[in-house]
Order: sequence, then structure tokens, then C-alpha cells
Amino acid sequence: MTLTVYLSGEIHTTWRDEIRKGAADNELDVKFTSPVTDHAASDAAGDHLGAETDSFWRDHKSSKVNAIRTKALIQEADLLVIRFGDKYKQWNAAFDAGYCAALSKPYITLHAEDIVHPLKEVDAMALAWARTTDQVVEILKYVERP
Amino acid sequence: MTLTVYLSGEIHTTWRDEIRKGAADNELDVKFTSPVTDHAASDAAGDHLGAETDSFWRDHKSSKVNAIRTKALIQEADLLVIRFGDKYKQWNAAFDAGYCAALSKPYITLHAEDIVHPLKEVDAMALAWARTTDQVVEILKYVERP
Amino acid sequence: MTLTVYLSGEIHTTWRDEIRKGAADNELDVKFTSPVTDHAASDAAGDHLGAETDSFWRDHKSSKVNAIRTKALIQEADLLVIRFGDKYKQWNAAFDAGYCAALSKPYITLHAEDIVHPLKEVDAMALAWARTTDQVVEILKYVERP
Amino acid sequence: MTLTVYLSGEIHTTWRDEIRKGAADNELDVKFTSPVTDHAASDAAGDHLGAETDSFWRDHKSSKVNAIRTKALIQEADLLVIRFGDKYKQWNAAFDAGYCAALSKPYITLHAEDIVHPLKEVDAMALAWARTTDQVVEILKYVERP
Amino acid sequence: MTLTVYLSGEIHTTWRDEIRKGAADNELDVKFTSPVTDHAASDAAGDHLGAETDSFWRDHKSSKVNAIRTKALIQEADLLVIRFGDKYKQWNAAFDAGYCAALSKPYITLHAEDIVHPLKEVDAMALAWARTTDQVVEILKYVERP
Amino acid sequence: MTLTVYLSGEIHTTWRDEIRKGAADNELDVKFTSPVTDHAASDAAGDHLGAETDSFWRDHKSSKVNAIRTKALIQEADLLVIRFGDKYKQWNAAFDAGYCAALSKPYITLHAEDIVHPLKEVDAMALAWARTTDQVVEILKYVERP
Amino acid sequence: MTLTVYLSGEIHTTWRDEIRKGAADNELDVKFTSPVTDHAASDAAGDHLGAETDSFWRDHKSSKVNAIRTKALIQEADLLVIRFGDKYKQWNAAFDAGYCAALSKPYITLHAEDIVHPLKEVDAMALAWARTTDQVVEILKYVERP
Amino acid sequence: MTLTVYLSGEIHTTWRDEIRKGAADNELDVKFTSPVTDHAASDAAGDHLGAETDSFWRDHKSSKVNAIRTKALIQEADLLVIRFGDKYKQWNAAFDAGYCAALSKPYITLHAEDIVHPLKEVDAMALAWARTTDQVVEILKYVERP
Repeated sequence: MTLTVYLSGEIHTTWRDEIRKGAADNELDVKFTSPVTDHAASDAAGDHLGAETDSFWRDHKSSKVNAIRTKALIQEADLLVIRFGDKYKQWNAAFDAGYCAALSKPYITLHAEDIVHPLKEVDAMALAWARTTDQVVEILKYVERP
Repeated sequence: MTLTVYLSGEIHTTWRDEIRKGAADNELDVKFTSPVTDHAASDAAGDHLGAETDSFWRDHKSSKVNAIRTKALIQEADLLVIRFGDKYKQWNAAFDAGYCAALSKPYITLHAEDIVHPLKEVDAMALAWARTTDQVVEILKYVERP
Repeated sequence: MTLTVYLSGEIHTTWRDEIRKGAADNELDVKFTSPVTDHAASDAAGDHLGAETDSFWRDHKSSKVNAIRTKALIQEADLLVIRFGDKYKQWNAAFDAGYCAALSKPYITLHAEDIVHPLKEVDAMALAWARTTDQVVEILKYVERP
Repeated sequence: MTLTVYLSGEIHTTWRDEIRKGAADNELDVKFTSPVTDHAASDAAGDHLGAETDSFWRDHKSSKVNAIRTKALIQEADLLVIRFGDKYKQWNAAFDAGYCAALSKPYITLHAEDIVHPLKEVDAMALAWARTTDQVVEILKYVERP
Repeated sequence: MTLTVYLSGEIHTTWRDEIRKGAADNELDVKFTSPVTDHAASDAAGDHLGAETDSFWRDHKSSKVNAIRTKALIQEADLLVIRFGDKYKQWNAAFDAGYCAALSKPYITLHAEDIVHPLKEVDAMALAWARTTDQVVEILKYVERP
Repeated sequence: MTLTVYLSGEIHTTWRDEIRKGAADNELDVKFTSPVTDHAASDAAGDHLGAETDSFWRDHKSSKVNAIRTKALIQEADLLVIRFGDKYKQWNAAFDAGYCAALSKPYITLHAEDIVHPLKEVDAMALAWARTTDQVVEILKYVERP
Repeated sequence: MTLTVYLSGEIHTTWRDEIRKGAADNELDVKFTSPVTDHAASDAAGDHLGAETDSFWRDHKSSKVNAIRTKALIQEADLLVIRFGDKYKQWNAAFDAGYCAALSKPYITLHAEDIVHPLKEVDAMALAWARTTDQVVEILKYVERP
Repeated sequence: MTLTVYLSGEIHTTWRDEIRKGAADNELDVKFTSPVTDHAASDAAGDHLGAETDSFWRDHKSSKVNAIRTKALIQEADLLVIRFGDKYKQWNAAFDAGYCAALSKPYITLHAEDIVHPLKEVDAMALAWARTTDQVVEILKYVERP
């Protein structure tokens, strides 16, 4: 089975690369997708549609241009890994989790132990909670067993 | 039209009471529902099912008992108001927003201006962003015009 | 059977009143709903959420506040009557028709003969085309036969 | 990601060619689809099924033969671009927008500034509004970033 | 439980009355609905929308006006009884059965033994096959046991 | 576009071959599927699962084994052609039409003019009615225009 | 909130009565539904439709008559309690759990500790696991908090 | 047609190999998938996510990691074969059957005659009941007829 895995959430650390490398090292038949992870580019995704004086509308336009990509990729994914780091609000990651829960799209969370309590609703609907990218790769290895 | 409105999110301020009072003062035909808003009770919702030594599982059980109530109420709601305050992570509120977005269930957000940027994905799929509970009541008045 | 009928489209003539009166005269068990039909109020539906300098965003906010009402009412309707008059673009009426078609929600159109050609895609998915409000009332009478 | 984009709406200008060319110039992995854009052929799509004396039924048959193609292509599209020009009623374009909105199928609109007001309900559910075909190509470039 | 039962199919015998009487005699909490069973009225359901010279279009219009009623009633039914008699083609009854099968809406068939073979696909997806109206009433009594 | 077309209904004439030949002659990018059209084999599809003394159950088992194939093929089809001939009850063809109608799966009917009246409900939800296989091929040619 | 709770599974002990009594003692606004729990009647539910010589078909007919009731009640339930006792195979209870999981219908399980391992897939998708009927009542009390 | 068939249930006998061999011997265009059938590995699927002192949670984690694989494979299957052997509770197999029933995903059961009675609800929604793997292969041969 070719598994399509969407990597949602934190964009400031190397977790996506670690998972991609782990999958490659194990020669797993997994295709990874993700949102645009260049923070500045993501915030500016709608700028070419016209300048805004109100930052709410600038954000609004960029979020929706990003949604064109993310909605399509989430639809075609078999599984999501949703990463919560130790900085920022990361409400978009929790939003993706809720979106998946409503669609019965399986997801696993990746986060440290100290944020277990605020993530309890998100974890409750996840199929697994991983603390490390190695654990995510282990899950993928298991899912891909012949 | 009797409108059923689910009030999701922050549980430490009086925003729910303000909206209920505003609707009552205007004699609106609106029925409000909400999660259990007693924080301690909510955290302990699963405790009677057996003690846990690992706090992850305690949270897990309580989240799911809460989900019995919240899933049923969200299903029957015509509209959600999702409140983000200035404290805590509030990932459950963003989770509810994503859940609604996937089900095409309309929601509006209620939050201050200083968190517009981190909420941009959540606001992008909302039908309105209100800064005050008065604005929410105004929306309900409009929706309920004869 | 109590039939819930949503009256969509043109807001500048008395067609809604004619249908309501015809149903009342025939003592039909029909409940009618509609968008807010006060044009100025509808355009201003989002104004209380804050002034906009760009008219695109003013329209955007008002459209979405209106959508809170219209989406809920369309969901609960058994049937829509969608009216196209001889003025204005009326793209919102065609939008409602497409929305219903995708959801397999039955609708009938009400319009004069001279706009049959541009409405051909809209009429193709309708369950009836009526030229007069009397014809709509006749349909309702038939649907409500004991 | 191979993105499948359905180009809906106006058939009397070169906007589809401009977008196709822009995508080709940028070597984007995008597959474009569209309705039959030969106006006379589209109006005559049902003629071979038997002549009609009433133009309503001629239109009816042709619209439905066209729907065989358009429904299949819209189903398989990841994104729609819906174009509104300055001529004709174009209710079919607004119908497609409503159809997509109900199915949570992402679409962007392409139209000039002077028809913002009558398109407000259509734009309210779009993920972007573009004024030029270059802006559409920019969106596709962004969505297709590696 | 109040059970809503739609009685589909044959309109030339008294089977609907027998079932209604059986349910009343047993004081069952069942609400029965049905299409318009006056054959001439049903065929003429669209006539008031304008005369047609081609009988195909007359049938077409009447079928769709009937569909306004039947689609709404099938949607709200918990169960259908679909009756096949010994006359006529009765393709509309088989159509209703297929419609229910696709929606996972439960239905039972009511027909004599000599048409078991041509009805095999219809019966295969039914929850029961009854030969007599008494058997249908027995099923309703069982379903309504306290 | 590769169009997948399921050919449902009558199995005693050469209509399927005529359509396949017409598509081949026109080099159309169409893939045709169909139920098992060997009548004896179809009736015996469940026989190897054990003999039945009651012909109802023999039919029942064979219908369901056939449904494994037909349900899968209808799901993956973009379009159905449903053929009604002049013999037999053909309730399975009307059943397929209803099944498609409920799933918003497009279908066209193929039948002679003398059975227009009993097929009115089936035709009402079809996207076209063809009298000849040539007309079906013409539709496919149109749908497949570049 | 009036909560509708379907009580699925074991029919040889008094667990349903205990839950009903617990809810009544606490004056909870809960409506309970269940399959027919008279074992002999349930096995004979299809007998009046004609005798069968093969017990497979007798079971088949009765199961389907039971399904008329159970499918309707599960559809209208907000929550299921699914009970596994210490006797019999109880595959129907696990079947109901899978049915709910696919429909995102919330359920809780009620069973002793010694069958945790064979029920692990069923429990994994449940919102709670209760060991006693008192625990079920506690959950209902929590869900029904004002 | 390439048929994708998921083989669910019993993991202690060679039934999967027999069906694979039968399909290969007949050169059928069938792709088989299955859960991880190594019992010890399956029970330990979540162990690498952290040790658990309570066996309920160990089972819980492993079941969910398994669900990542099984949910994805069931979604993409055209047909399931669900096997019940003579040992163990096998509630997971009945759970899969219920899951399929709710999604209208076709399945056939494979089991001996002596467990017909407890499997009656599961068999009632199946498209076939086979006693031997040869019978399953016969079904696949029939479904795959050209």
C-alpha cells in the first residue's frame, strides 16, 4: 500500500525532514505532503491579489489561498501527522485535527509530554500520540508491513 | 425560526451569560447550549470510571466523556459561537472550529484584535468575527428578523 | 405533511406575499421562510462588526452574516421556490439553485418566459418552472393533497 | 501534486487560454478541464435527440447533455476557477459556484471590480477573488510550490 | 417509537387501506404517507404549468411535480412498503426501491409469489418480502413492540 | 477525459455491442462496463454456494452475488446508460436508475417511444432519453469533445 | 437536552432495567430505546412470513425484520450503550459498535474486565468503557448537567 | 476490473493463502489486502509509544495503531471477505462487518455452518455466505467475468 501522509503543524523545526529521512532509510512506500512551510511566503500568499490596509483582511486572503492547497492535500491523505511545538498558538494545527475528526480521517499527534493537558481533546480523537519523530517512523513501518 | 446556538470555548469569563442576557433582553427565539463549563468537573468527567496513574489517560477518559455531550450538541446546533480568550492554549476551541468547517456547520468567532494573526485559519472559515458579546447579540437579532 | 418552503431570490416585488396569501386562502399546511428581504438592511448586515473602507469587504461581511440565516433555513426546507425578476444580476438566486442541486434539495423556479435561455442550466435541475405565483400555489396544493 | 482545475463560466474571451499558457510557461503540474466552450455546439447539444418546437425543451435537453460532462468534470476537480465577464446573465457560472459551495469543493472567482456587489454571495464562499488571469496563475504557482 | 411508513407502488387496489386499518385495529403508533394515488390527478400534476403537445414532456412535468411530494416523504420515512401488483410496468416502484437502497433507507416489498423472479434484485436489498397486507401489519406490530 | 460508462438493463439484444462499436469507430476515450450479461450464468451466480429447494432463496443468493459486481462498477462509473427493451419486467433496470438518482450519479435512458408513459419517473431523473444506440454514441462524442 | 440512548447487546440480564432505574432516580431527561429483548420472539420475528426448512433462512428473515427496528432506533439515538456479557458470541453487539463507528455515532461499552483483550478494537472506538451500570448512570448524569 | 479485496478476521489458519492461491491459479485481476496477521506483532503495535502498566491501555494503543492500517485499507477495498473461525471471540471481525454495513461497503462472510445462528445479524447484511475458500474463489471468478 502506498500511504499518503500529510504533515500538519509546526513549521520552525526539522521534524518533517526527520520523518521523511526515517521513511527513506526504511524504504517505506509513503508519499509525504505538507502545507507551504516557508512562514513569510505563507503569510504573503494572498498579497499578489491586492494590498490591504487592514491586517485582518491580509491574513484572511492568505489563509484562504493556503486553504486551496491544504484542503486538497488533506482530502487525498490517508493519514495526518499533526505536530505541536513549544512556541506560538498553533490554532491552525488544532483546526486541522478537528477537521479530520469530523471527516473520520485518521490522524496522529506529535508533541512533548508537557502539553498533554491542553491537547486532551485533540489527542482523544487521534489514533496515536507520538513524542518523537522516531516513533512516527515506527508507526509508518508497522502500517506498511507486507 | 428557533435558532440553536452552541457556545464553545473559554470557560473563565462571563461571555456566555452576556450573550444569554442579550438574547433574553431582545426576546430572541434562540436556544443556547454549551459544554460543561465547570473546569474542575470537566477535568474529572471520567474519574468515576476508575483512577489512572498516568495523567494522559485521565485526560483521555475525561475528554471522551465530555465528547459524548459536545458531539451531540454540536450536531443539533444551527450555529456555533467560538470564543478565544487571552489565557491558556484553547486548542479545543480551534478543534471545534475545524470540526464545524468539515461539516459545513456555520460558526462565528469571538475574540480580541490582538490574536487575529494566530487565528487566521480559524477566522477564514468563520461566517463572522465579533470582538464583543454585544456584536454577537446583534448578529443573532439580525438572523432572527421576522 | 407540513411542508417547509424557502422563498429565494428577487426582493423588489410582492411575489412572496402572493404565494403566502394563496397558501393561506387554500388553508395549506405550509410554513414559508425567506432571507431578510429589506435590501438596505441586508447590505448592512455586517456593518455593526466594524466599518470597512473597501466596499468588497463590507459586502463580504454582510454576505456572510446573511449566510448564517440562509444556510440554516435552506437546510431545514423541504422545497425552495427561486424567483428571477427582470432586473439586477440575481447571481445569488442562481447560487442558491446550484447549492440545492448539489444537496439534492428540490427547488422550483419562478420566472418569465423571456429569460428561459440564460436560465437553462438552472431550470434543467429544477423540479418545475412556474411563470406565475398562482402556478406555484397550484403546485403546493397538489403536493399537500391529503 | 497534480492539481485538476476546472475552468467554469464566460466562453467569449480568451481567459482560459491565458491561464493555460501561464501554467505552461511556469511548468506547473496542473490539468485543466472545462465545459464545451463552442457556444453554438453547446446550445445544440441535445438536438440530435429529436427536434423540439418549444425552445424551453430544446434548452432543457441541451443543458442536461452538457451536465453529463460538467458534473463529471466538477466531481474530479480539485479546484474551480469561475469567470464572470461583462456580458450576458451568466447564471450558469453562479450555479456552478453554489454547487461547489454545497460540496465543499474549493473555487476562486475571476471578475472585474465593477461587479463586486452583485457577486457578493458568490465571492463570500470563494477561496479567492482574482481580477486578472495573471493573478490566477500566481495562485496556481503558490499552490504548486514544492 | 412513532414509525413513519411510506406506502409506495400500486395505486389500483385497496392494499394501503388494509394496512392502515390493520395498524389502527392494533393501535399501532404508525404514521402512513403515500404519493398521490388518484391516477388521473397524478398524470395531470403538471398540466396547470402549461399545455404540452408532446406527451413525453407532459409526463416529464407531471413526474417532477410528483417528485416534490415523494422525495420529501421518502426522506422523512423510517420505512417503506413497496407494492408490486399484477398489472402495469410499475417501474416507478422499482425506482423507489433502488432509491432507498442507495440511501440505506429500509424497505419491505409486498407482492405475490409469481413475480419473485423478475423482482429478485429488488427483493435482495429489501428487509422483508410480504405476500399479504396482514403480514405487513404483523411486521409493524413486531417493530412497535414496547 | 476517460469516461467510464456502465451499460445497465436489457441483456437479450445487441445494444451494448452497437454502442461499443460506435465508440470504437469514433475513437472515443470511453471504458465500458456491464453486469454479467449471460442470462443463465447470472441466474446461477449463487448456485455454487449450495443448492436451494425454494426458488426465492436461489434468486436471492444469485442477486446478491451479482450485486458484488454491479455495485462496485456503478460506484466507479461516471455515467450509466440504462436500457429498457420490449420484453420482461426489467425491474432491475429501474432499480439501478433509482439507485443512481439517490447518489446523484448521472444516467441516460435508452428505450422506444411506446414505453414513455410507464417510464416517466425514470426518465424524469435522467440526463437524456435516447431512442437509438446511435444517439447514445452521439452523446458520448459530445461529452468527449476536446 | 433530551438524550436518546439506545441500549444494545446482552438480553439475559437486568442491566437495561438498572440503567433505566438509575436515570429515573436521578430524574434525568433521557429516553431509552432497545431492540426487542424477548429472545424467543426475536428469533421468531420473521416466522409469520412463511416457514423455512433451512435454519439459515429462518435466521436470515428474522434478523432483517429485527433490523427494521434497530436501524431506525440507532439512527435516531444520540448515544449507544453496548453491553457484552459473559455468555454467547454476541457478534451482533460488536456489529452494532462497528456500525456506529462508521457513522460517527457515539457509543460506550459496558463489560467486565476479563474480556478487555478480545474487545480491544471495539473499545478503541468507544467514548467510554464502563464496568457497571452505575458508571453508565454517572456518565448520563454528567452529560445531562445543566 | 481490478477488484481490491480486504481479507478480515481469523489470523490462525491458512484461509488467506488459500484464497490468494485460488485467485492466482485462475489468473484473476484481484488485489488482496489484510490487517497485520502476526498476532504478537499486532498486540504489540503500540508498545514502542511507551510502556503501559494497565493492559487496557496497552490494548487501546495497539488497536488504534492497527486501525490506521485497517481503516485505510477498508476504505479503498471494493469488497471484504470476513472470516469467522471456531476459536476466540472475534469481535473485531463482527465490528468490521458492522462498519462495512454502515458505509454500504459490500462484504461476504466465510464460516462453518455451526455458527450460523450467532452470526445471523452479520450474515443478514452480507452479500454472500461461503463455507469454504473455494466458494470465495468461485465468487471472485464470477465477479471478474469479462
